[in-house]
Amino acid sequence: MSTLETAQQILALLKAGKFDEAGKQFWADDVVSIEPMEGDMAVLRGKAAVQGKSDWWYANHEVHSATAHGPYVNGDQFAVTFAIDVTAKANGQRMQMEEVGLYTLRDGKVAEEKFYFRMG
Amino acid sequence: MSTLETAQQILALLKAGKFDEAGKQFWADDVVSIEPMEGDMAVLRGKAAVQGKSDWWYANHEVHSATAHGPYVNGDQFAVTFAIDVTAKANGQRMQMEEVGLYTLRDGKVAEEKFYFRMG
Repeated sequence: MSTLETAQQILALLKAGKFDEAGKQFWADDVVSIEPMEGDMAVLRGKAAVQGKSDWWYANHEVHSATAHGPYVNGDQFAVTFAIDVTAKANGQRMQMEEVGLYTLRDGKVAEEKFYFRMG
Repeated sequence: MSTLETAQQILALLKAGKFDEAGKQFWADDVVSIEPMEGDMAVLRGKAAVQGKSDWWYANHEVHSATAHGPYVNGDQFAVTFAIDVTAKANGQRMQMEEVGLYTLRDGKVAEEKFYFRMG
């Protein structure tokens, strides 16, 4: 399957709000997930660890809306833009976040996902 | 200067339509520029070669509008989304293009720029 075809399948799940399902189907067993932050969750390796981060995130945030746009393709990589409206349960703070996710494919699976947050 | 500060300076030029000026000020001498296409212009190395691609592009396209949004930051990299409305002079075809540009900084200069095109 081409990068575009795989990207479109992943994006269809993301657009349907099925972020969790997209990961389960498309993360490689040794996927690397890179977030723009310091600390324990900045770089996670392996499907179980990345699934754990996802579970933590959903347990600790109330998602009001999440939209995904793309894919933007180059070679074995594609980018998706996200706009996410969430409330952090810990402090009740509501945030409108904008992100770019950059996905690197290998054998039709996501070998790496790297996220960029809109700042400034 | 931090990634965010450099990204904001570059984005201010892009938002003002000064794409050419952004390159002149911020490309490293050995910048690598990667486009999502086959052929001679897919990967260019060196400020002179990348400037040549830019000159070719402006000479061969009429730009009706170009907007830039971001920056989205992670470590020494940042992403920018572009929406560009152009007519190719060769065939008169008008195109609405969406792109993501991913910039990697080194010593406050752009060491690599990689572009992703929206497809499908």
